[in-house]
Amino acid sequence: MIRDYSQRLVVQEVAPRDGLQIEQKWVETDDKIALIDNLSACGFTRIEAGSFVSPKAIPALRDGDEVFHRIGRRPGVIYVALIPNVKGAERALAAHADELNLVMSASETHNRANMRMSCEQSLAGFGDIVRLVAGSGASLNATVATAFGCPFEGRIDEDRVASIVDTYREMGMQGITLADTTGMANPRQVARIVERVLGRIPAEALTLHFHNTRGLGLANVLAAYEAGARRFDASLGGLGGCPFAPGASGNICTEDLVAMCEELSIPTGIDLLKLIELSRTLPALVGHDVPGQVAKAGRNCDLHPVPAYVRTI
Amino acid sequence: MIRDYSQRLVVQEVAPRDGLQIEQKWVETDDKIALIDNLSACGFTRIEAGSFVSPKAIPALRDGDEVFHRIGRRPGVIYVALIPNVKGAERALAAHADELNLVMSASETHNRANMRMSCEQSLAGFGDIVRLVAGSGASLNATVATAFGCPFEGRIDEDRVASIVDTYREMGMQGITLADTTGMANPRQVARIVERVLGRIPAEALTLHFHNTRGLGLANVLAAYEAGARRFDASLGGLGGCPFAPGASGNICTEDLVAMCEELSIPTGIDLLKLIELSRTLPALVGHDVPGQVAKAGRNCDLHPVPAYVRTI
Repeated sequence: MIRDYSQRLVVQEVAPRDGLQIEQKWVETDDKIALIDNLSACGFTRIEAGSFVSPKAIPALRDGDEVFHRIGRRPGVIYVALIPNVKGAERALAAHADELNLVMSASETHNRANMRMSCEQSLAGFGDIVRLVAGSGASLNATVATAFGCPFEGRIDEDRVASIVDTYREMGMQGITLADTTGMANPRQVARIVERVLGRIPAEALTLHFHNTRGLGLANVLAAYEAGARRFDASLGGLGGCPFAPGASGNICTEDLVAMCEELSIPTGIDLLKLIELSRTLPALVGHDVPGQVAKAGRNCDLHPVPAYVRTI
Repeated sequence: MIRDYSQRLVVQEVAPRDGLQIEQKWVETDDKIALIDNLSACGFTRIEAGSFVSPKAIPALRDGDEVFHRIGRRPGVIYVALIPNVKGAERALAAHADELNLVMSASETHNRANMRMSCEQSLAGFGDIVRLVAGSGASLNATVATAFGCPFEGRIDEDRVASIVDTYREMGMQGITLADTTGMANPRQVARIVERVLGRIPAEALTLHFHNTRGLGLANVLAAYEAGARRFDASLGGLGGCPFAPGASGNICTEDLVAMCEELSIPTGIDLLKLIELSRTLPALVGHDVPGQVAKAGRNCDLHPVPAYVRTI
């Protein structure tokens, strides 16, 4: 089977938002800004840099306004903000976020548990946000959370996922993310859904957001890439977790993803060595070990010295 | 792209050998026997149950003779022993191992570092073992270690791997394992090498042994399966490590592999629920957390209770 691995894979780094949002230890604003600036120096073209959610709901990211104002805006980098509602969109626009990311779950139960509103209410809010953002110069991305499975409802009807994609496009969303929020996707399902959605929207408008909760994160990336997807969320060090799987991994790890791409000769434009160095600063920043593997094991090309006794055999 | 996932995938469980061999804490002989017997009750048809290596080299497995004598032999299960030399083969036959697994690295440097002999010396020893085992009723499997990369030499010439496979077959080895000893394989390389080797030997004679050192373990399994491979080593809980990657995972995790197969509808014959229960006993047995993800996260079908507040929205 001949497969083409020559097309660029765009990595959107989400550690500053999806990674830091669940950390117990407060990460200083200066440290957040340094992390984002160090990430943009690694070659990312898209960074989810923070969220404009209620500080009561996500205290770890309550300094989003200051972070967005003080980061060094590198030309060509799109700085994305996650927003839950119109108020968040107003804050994000005031902080000059380049793109706003809205989230609704394909699962009605999960949307009520996570966003504390029905899907109908979510979509009504999205309409208000579309009208607010129109003409601002910022672009809009909308995420279908639990697109590959819900921890409350189980399997998600693929017709429903396709229908939400259509609704998002009709509302004027430039980008759409399919998120495997709690790591329930498998490569076969991923290939099927990606092929279906790419019949509706162009590859440059689609992002895949995988978690490694059950060990399938990179296998799912590869299945999606082989089905035509080109843009993926990933988190430095695999930072970020899943409240339904204590001890298991959360987001797929950026440097593990980039290392895989290097081995497969898939271009990413990201400096893997710099990325690994940056990832190795994370345990000190967040106060615990992180799940990423390549920062521990090194790249394949980082060879080990030959033991002295070998020369005597 | 239509892919066929209907063919059975055979999992050879290696935790009692590859997993336990590097554990610092002594695991009691009774506990090893209980582990193996509990594994055979999960539906495995192949278990690498121990090794007959010098007790100085691998003290953790010095009770191999007693383990092999006292396990409950379940009909249909092949109990494999790893052996390094003729003396080990004599012990394995005396202990009624069903199959003997021999190891040589494709990398000359790694073979000298790991086996403390040259590849030429290894092959000469294999010849002696083949003569010893002939007529005993036991079968022979030979492993090509570092088949996908060497931590000292880097990339391994694929012609060399193919040539070792030919040599093994000419010597009379019934089975051959290609081992990614330190987790350097990638799915593209795996597909290429598996396709090449399956031009030389039938699928039922080939085992793939992957490590998850850089997060690609299950992606490599899937690439190998799609290329026609049908037999895979895996270790309960992901037990086992890599001395060159402290903190990174070692062997791929059995229950993560079986869970992937269930999601893909690939038959394995293994009881996943029993397997997860057994994996959850490992931290107490070895005295530390293990890398497997599914034992922490649960199966996809293990749904979570809906929070009470959801009903009020």
